[in-house]
Amino acid sequence: MTCTPPELLNWNRLDWNALDAAQREQALRRPAQVTQATTAAAVAAILDEVRRDGDAAVRACTRRFDGIELDDLAVDVDEFSAAESGLPRSLRDAIDEAAARIASFHIAGMTAAYSLETAPGVSCERILRPIRNVGLYVPAGSAPLPSTALMLGVPAQLAGCPNVVLCTPPRRDGSADPAVLYAARRCGVTRVYKIGGAQAIAAMAFGTGSVPRCDKLFGPGNAYVTEAKRQVAVADDGAAIDMPAGPSEVLVIADAGANASFVAADLLSQAEHGPDSQVLLLSNDDALIDAVMAEVELQLDALPRAGIARQALASSRAIRVASIAQALDISNRYAPEHLILALRDARAWLPQVQAAGSVFLGDWAPEALGDYCSGTNHVLPTSGAARFSSGVSVASFQVSITVQEVNPRGIAAIGPCAVELASAEGLDAHRMAVALRLQAVAP
Amino acid sequence: MTCTPPELLNWNRLDWNALDAAQREQALRRPAQVTQATTAAAVAAILDEVRRDGDAAVRACTRRFDGIELDDLAVDVDEFSAAESGLPRSLRDAIDEAAARIASFHIAGMTAAYSLETAPGVSCERILRPIRNVGLYVPAGSAPLPSTALMLGVPAQLAGCPNVVLCTPPRRDGSADPAVLYAARRCGVTRVYKIGGAQAIAAMAFGTGSVPRCDKLFGPGNAYVTEAKRQVAVADDGAAIDMPAGPSEVLVIADAGANASFVAADLLSQAEHGPDSQVLLLSNDDALIDAVMAEVELQLDALPRAGIARQALASSRAIRVASIAQALDISNRYAPEHLILALRDARAWLPQVQAAGSVFLGDWAPEALGDYCSGTNHVLPTSGAARFSSGVSVASFQVSITVQEVNPRGIAAIGPCAVELASAEGLDAHRMAVALRLQAVAP
Ligand SMILES: [Zn+2]
Ligand SMILES: [Zn+2]
Repeated sequence: MTCTPPELLNWNRLDWNALDAAQREQALRRPAQVTQATTAAAVAAILDEVRRDGDAAVRACTRRFDGIELDDLAVDVDEFSAAESGLPRSLRDAIDEAAARIASFHIAGMTAAYSLETAPGVSCERILRPIRNVGLYVPAGSAPLPSTALMLGVPAQLAGCPNVVLCTPPRRDGSADPAVLYAARRCGVTRVYKIGGAQAIAAMAFGTGSVPRCDKLFGPGNAYVTEAKRQVAVADDGAAIDMPAGPSEVLVIADAGANASFVAADLLSQAEHGPDSQVLLLSNDDALIDAVMAEVELQLDALPRAGIARQALASSRAIRVASIAQALDISNRYAPEHLILALRDARAWLPQVQAAGSVFLGDWAPEALGDYCSGTNHVLPTSGAARFSSGVSVASFQVSITVQEVNPRGIAAIGPCAVELASAEGLDAHRMAVALRLQAVAP
Repeated sequence: MTCTPPELLNWNRLDWNALDAAQREQALRRPAQVTQATTAAAVAAILDEVRRDGDAAVRACTRRFDGIELDDLAVDVDEFSAAESGLPRSLRDAIDEAAARIASFHIAGMTAAYSLETAPGVSCERILRPIRNVGLYVPAGSAPLPSTALMLGVPAQLAGCPNVVLCTPPRRDGSADPAVLYAARRCGVTRVYKIGGAQAIAAMAFGTGSVPRCDKLFGPGNAYVTEAKRQVAVADDGAAIDMPAGPSEVLVIADAGANASFVAADLLSQAEHGPDSQVLLLSNDDALIDAVMAEVELQLDALPRAGIARQALASSRAIRVASIAQALDISNRYAPEHLILALRDARAWLPQVQAAGSVFLGDWAPEALGDYCSGTNHVLPTSGAARFSSGVSVASFQVSITVQEVNPRGIAAIGPCAVELASAEGLDAHRMAVALRLQAVAP
C-alpha cells in the first residue's frame, strides 16, 4: 500500500447552495469532542487523590506526569528574579507593551457601579466586588503561553482580586517558564505554582497545604485540564470555571478583493493551534478560494508545526457562498470563536454579526493580533458557545451585588404593590413583612 | 409515643465565639442538596423521551404528571385576552407598576458598547447582541409566580432577544395562570406553552414540533426542573442555563435597635418559600434574638404556609456574635442569596459586604420588596454561589463580542509586538500572519 501525501486542494470544498439542509448541517458540524472514558476516569482519580492527600498527591502526579521531583511547588522570589533578568529585553518589552494595551481596553469596558431612585425613598444600586480567590491556569505543553498569563492576569488585577494563584507546568529541570513568570509578576501575580494538568485544577479547586482553595478557575489547557475543569465545575466541593473550553476556531469570510496570502496565513495560524482546530473559509469568489488554497500549500511547508496544521486542515472546509450576506448568515449559525471579515467594506457588515467571540475587520487585522496585543482578550467561547456566552473580561473576575435602601416614604410608595403581588402568589409571610411596615409608617 | 410540638425557641441557637473551627463550619453548612438517584434517572428518562418524540412525549408527560390532556400546548390569543380581562384591576396595576420599576433599574445597568483606539490605527470595540433564542421557565407549583415572569421577561425584552419562549405548568383545567400570562405579554412574550417540570426544560433545550429550540434557559423550579436544567447544561445537544438553582436563603444581621417584629416577618417570609429554605439570624444582642424568636412564634401560627415555614426554621440558626463586624465576616463566608442589614447604620456597613446576591439596608427594606417591585432582580445566586456569580440582569440575555479594526498604520504600530510574542510561544504561523502584513506595509 502506498501512502499518498495529503491533498490540501481537496479539503472539503463545498458549494453551500448545492447542499440540502442535512448536508448544510453536516458542513457546519464540529467534530464531536468525545472525552475518552479513560481520560474521564484518569482525571476523576487524580481529583480524588488531590482532594484526599493534597500536596503529597500533587507531588506524586508531578513525578508521574512531568517526570520530576519537586520539593517546593511554589515559585520563590529568586526564581522570579532569575526569570526576569534572564529574559531577552525585546521579549520583556513585548510583554509590557501587550499588557498595557490589554489593560487599556479592559479598563474601558469595566462594569460601573450605579444607583437609581426607583421610587421616592427607594434607592436601588449595583455594587461590584472582586471574586476573592481566583485560580489561573497557564499551559506550557507544546509551548509556554505568556500571553495567556496576561489575558487572565490583567483582568484579575483590574478587578482587584485579593488572592490570585497561577499554576503552570514545570519544565524538565523543575523551573517554570521565565516568560510566564515575568508576565505573571507584571500583573501582580506572585503566587505561582509549578503544577500542570488535572492535578493543577484539583489543587486550585480543593486547596492543598500549599495551594489556597479558589472560588473560580480560569484558563485553557489540554484534554486533561479541560476534563478536570468540567469535573470540578459540577462537584459540590469544586469551583466555578470561566467557560467550557473546546478546540480553537476561525471562520474567515473573504471577498474577491481579499489578499489570498494573508487569508492563507490566517487559516494556517488557526490550524497550528492544534490538530483539532477548526478552520472555515467562506467566499463568494471561486478564484479567491483557489488562490487561498494554493497559498496554504505554499506557506505550509515552511512551518515548524506543519504536521499539526495539516491535521487540522484535513477536517476544515472552504465553502462557496452566493453572497457575503449568505456568508454572514452561515457564520451566525456556526458562531465561531474568531471571525475574520476579509472584506472591502468589512465595517459595513459588522451589524450583521450576531454571534462570535471576537471579530477582525479588514485585511490588516490578523487573528494573531487578538491573540497577543490588540487589547482584546483571547480567552473566548468555542464550540458555538458564542451563541450564549462571551469572552473573558474584568467582569469575569467580579460579582455584581444589588442593594436596596428604603425609607418610610419608600415603603409607603411601593409597599402596596408588593402586598398585591404577594397576595396573588399566596405568599402570606411576604405580604405580612410589608404590611407590618406599612402599618408602622401610616398607622 | 407522644408527639411533641416543634419547639421553635430551641432552633439551633449558637454563640459564635463559643464554637471551634469545625463547629463554625458546621454552623454555616447548608444541608446537602442530594438529588435522589431516582430523581436524576426519572429526569434523564423524560429528557430522552422529549429529545426523541418531541411534542408527543411532552403531551404524554403532561398527562402523566399534570393529569390533563392538552391538544394545543401553546397559549392562543383568546386565552391571553381572557386572562387579561379576567384579572382584577388591582393585580394588573401591580404587575404594571412592578414591571416599570424593574425596567428602570435594569435599563440603568445595561452594558454599553464602547470603542477605543488602543494604538494609532488600531480600534478595539465591544459590541452587544441579544441571545437569539431564550427560554423562560415560570413555576406554578404551590402558587403561580407572575413576579418571576417579570424578572425574566423584562431583561429579555430590554436585551432585545428576538425569540423568547416561556413555559409554565398548566392548571387542572388546562389553562395557564392568568397573572403569569398577563405579566408575560406585558414583557412582549407571546409564545407561552403550558408545559411544566422536566418536560418543559427538555422541550426548550431540544426543541419540539411546537416549541422552538433555545440557546439559554432561565428560571427557578422544583427539584425536577433544577435537575433537568443541570442535565441539559452538560449535554452536548443541550442549552446553557442562567445558574444552578438551590433553595432560597436569607441572612439577617440585626443590632439591638432592630424591630423584632420586622425581623421575624422577614425570617418567616424566607421560611415560607419552601421546607428547605435557609434562614440565618446574626445579632450581637441576646435580647434582640429572644424578642425575634418570640415574634416568630407569634406570627407563625397566622400563616397559611406555617407548616412549610416550620420545617425550614427547624434547620435554621440564630447566632450570637461579638460584634457587627464579626457578623459581616460570617456573612461573607456564607455568601447568602439575600442579606438584610437591620442595623442603625446599615449604609456604613455596605463596604464590608463582599459576597451576597442582594442586600437590604435598614428596617424599611424587607426582602419581599426585592422579590417583587423595588426594581432589582429576584433571580439570584444561592448555595454560596454569590462568592463567584451574580443575579440575573440584562447582560444575562446578551453576548459581548470584541472587535478589532486595524489599518496599515496600526499593523506597523503593534505588529512587531505580536511577532515577538508569537516567536516566544513557538507559533510560527501566527508570526507569519503578522510578518507578511508588516512586509506589505513597509517593504
Ligand atoms: Zn491564534
Ligand atoms: Zn422571598
